[in-house]
Amino acid sequence: VTIAVLGTGAVGRTIASKLVELGHDVIMGSRTRDSDKAAEWVRTTDGRGAQGTFADAAGPADVVFNCTSGVGSLAAVELAGRDRLRRKILIDVSNPLDFSRGMPPSLTVCNTDSLGEQIQRALPETKVVKTLNTVNHLVMVDPLRIPGDHVIYVAGNDAGARAQVAGWLGDWFGWKPGSIIDLGDITAARGTEMVLPLWIRLMSTLGTPVFNFTIAR
Amino acid sequence: VTIAVLGTGAVGRTIASKLVELGHDVIMGSRTRDSDKAAEWVRTTDGRGAQGTFADAAGPADVVFNCTSGVGSLAAVELAGRDRLRRKILIDVSNPLDFSRGMPPSLTVCNTDSLGEQIQRALPETKVVKTLNTVNHLVMVDPLRIPGDHVIYVAGNDAGARAQVAGWLGDWFGWKPGSIIDLGDITAARGTEMVLPLWIRLMSTLGTPVFNFTIAR
Repeated sequence: VTIAVLGTGAVGRTIASKLVELGHDVIMGSRTRDSDKAAEWVRTTDGRGAQGTFADAAGPADVVFNCTSGVGSLAAVELAGRDRLRRKILIDVSNPLDFSRGMPPSLTVCNTDSLGEQIQRALPETKVVKTLNTVNHLVMVDPLRIPGDHVIYVAGNDAGARAQVAGWLGDWFGWKPGSIIDLGDITAARGTEMVLPLWIRLMSTLGTPVFNFTIAR
Repeated sequence: VTIAVLGTGAVGRTIASKLVELGHDVIMGSRTRDSDKAAEWVRTTDGRGAQGTFADAAGPADVVFNCTSGVGSLAAVELAGRDRLRRKILIDVSNPLDFSRGMPPSLTVCNTDSLGEQIQRALPETKVVKTLNTVNHLVMVDPLRIPGDHVIYVAGNDAGARAQVAGWLGDWFGWKPGSIIDLGDITAARGTEMVLPLWIRLMSTLGTPVFNFTIAR
């Protein structure tokens, strides 16, 4: 499959590299066609990765990861293009964090709405699935670096797309089926995005971003 | 010690009953002096529990639990009285959930503020410690009903009060020291209160309110 990764930050680079390593065709999309950060990433792939604008990446892609920063996500998917994303699965990894007033960040949207829902509304014919946004990027593509059945959530309006994404989480990144929790429709993104303030506080308290939650019952 | 429990709902009754069982003098406070629900609770205590207004409960108390519903908490602590709560520890178990528009509830405050902070601002000379609000009331007083080192958070501006409350969580309810995470000042209440939307969604998904989170790392 051809996979677009929107975003050139640590999250995008980590996911894109893992997908290249698995033999997929990966196009990293950014605002400009000649992004230095994307070019730097392409150089690490022995020519197997490509770069382009958000639209360049979205056009040929079978599936799209949104790894842009939350404050830029709506503009990014707009540039990627509603038509180019039509009927495709968009895996939304972003969080609506606003760092403009320093630490801790505030959320740009929460409570009765979420960034996942905003993106779904902006792309009504795309199957948006929110996932992976509750863990550090190192954990996203390598859950085995943390012991135990720690969990990852999927949320989206299309049950088939949620199941497909759950399968990819397993096949591509090694998430065990029992660790993947299907929360149902995209409104569940409110809950997974609103975990971020606690997550950020715990990162300071624990002294590491490499942790995750297990559910005990 | 004499303990005031503000609130006559399931949370208040569960905590008050556990404290009576441990031999403490417990006064359940409510808006009116002759609350039927408080009276019903008092009848279950073989005369060891008492009831009264929020002020009646707060006056003689050494420590106060706020177990009122979030939408009523500020009014309740106001009625309990800033003077009567001066220099005391108030353990805030409430969540800012607004059920007036049905399920799921929205939060009355979140993101850049929290109910814990609102209560601390309303009671500047009281040591407010936010805790227990991330688990079902049955788990609050009996963490051993769930296996594993599942966690509970304490947050408050006074480090001594946080340590004192952590001790009580162990002595009164059986929380193991390793399960208690000190998140620091009361602004951490934002994070623990904002977990509620995910918690509520998980309750539906898992089909039970008796679960909690463990931290894997």
